[in-house]
Amino acid sequence: MRFDDITLKSFCERVADGTPTPGGGAVSAVVGAFAASLIEMVANLTIARKDYAEWHSEMEKVIESMQKCRLELFQFADKDVQAFDEVMNAYKLPKDTQEKKKQRSEAIQKALENAAHVPYRTCRCLREVLNASEVVAKWGNVNAISDSISAAELARSAFNSAKANVLINVKYIKDESVKKLLLHEMETFTGEVEGIMRLVRKAVKERGGFEV
Amino acid sequence: MRFDDITLKSFCERVADGTPTPGGGAVSAVVGAFAASLIEMVANLTIARKDYAEWHSEMEKVIESMQKCRLELFQFADKDVQAFDEVMNAYKLPKDTQEKKKQRSEAIQKALENAAHVPYRTCRCLREVLNASEVVAKWGNVNAISDSISAAELARSAFNSAKANVLINVKYIKDESVKKLLLHEMETFTGEVEGIMRLVRKAVKERGGFEV
Repeated sequence: MRFDDITLKSFCERVADGTPTPGGGAVSAVVGAFAASLIEMVANLTIARKDYAEWHSEMEKVIESMQKCRLELFQFADKDVQAFDEVMNAYKLPKDTQEKKKQRSEAIQKALENAAHVPYRTCRCLREVLNASEVVAKWGNVNAISDSISAAELARSAFNSAKANVLINVKYIKDESVKKLLLHEMETFTGEVEGIMRLVRKAVKERGGFEV
Repeated sequence: MRFDDITLKSFCERVADGTPTPGGGAVSAVVGAFAASLIEMVANLTIARKDYAEWHSEMEKVIESMQKCRLELFQFADKDVQAFDEVMNAYKLPKDTQEKKKQRSEAIQKALENAAHVPYRTCRCLREVLNASEVVAKWGNVNAISDSISAAELARSAFNSAKANVLINVKYIKDESVKKLLLHEMETFTGEVEGIMRLVRKAVKERGGFEV
């Protein structure tokens, strides 16, 4: 399935129906792509203004990075659905002999690790989106300051939503080293994300004169 | 423009380009529709399970309400773009005579009030989405608990993003009574939204065993 090619209405219908995919993992990646697009817009609206000339090269970097993130996030949305289906398929494997039981258990673990890694990579990408939201909130066109905070808010919720998908899969992973690493990384990322949010809010308060 | 009929990729491209619309207001309404869809999914996955029979009628109410919200939110996305364009057009009106100056100023004020009211109505609708996220987090299929928290997180960020669009327009509204009412309403809504978020997080911790 490729989500970038379906309409917004059809995406909503596929989410809403009685099948578990696409679910929170895929939706958070798509929302992350929206946040990246908003940041790109603010960067474009900044480049259009001569009085922001000293920030133009910075904004060009932001655009390049957000275009890359947007593509990646759509890939993660697709991969999230595949990863979930693989977990479900692994659980359906036969367990009538000791050997098959073992194979099934290994397949489940492999699938779960992948199902945790996809939203983990979404989170990593969203950290980049949040970093870019700080750049546009601080130095982007002030007329689009509400778009900068919108982008940051949406990226943060996409991060938290993807994080929930990491954590729910981690619960069933048996390999302690994989578990530990993922939990440690998520904690670090969370600290960074909250730190960036504070800086974005500060910039919006100072430059836009309002607090969300 | 009708956003529900365009592809996710094309929506991102229209957001990202160098024009200020669609911006944060439209994107937050669409993200709100995604959150409503996720809640609908959890409700459907709950109705599919006989052991949740005592919550089926509650889930049917949730589905009905989220389908209504989804439609409304897509309308708000379209209206947000129109409202912004009206503000821009009002600023372009001639101001070469005293009379025209007065007419222009009145047109700007009328357009600004509308541009604040559209995201305000988005916020009101998102409060309903958040209320529903609490219902599915507490009584919905526990296998979809990460989708319940995803929905709540996304709806809250959509709320904050729409709120930023109310606040930025309120800044330029001169009618003190309109201004006061909108700010008061936003404060009340914010308190409610934060309260619901706490309850959703509590339910996810208790039922899902993890914290975002």
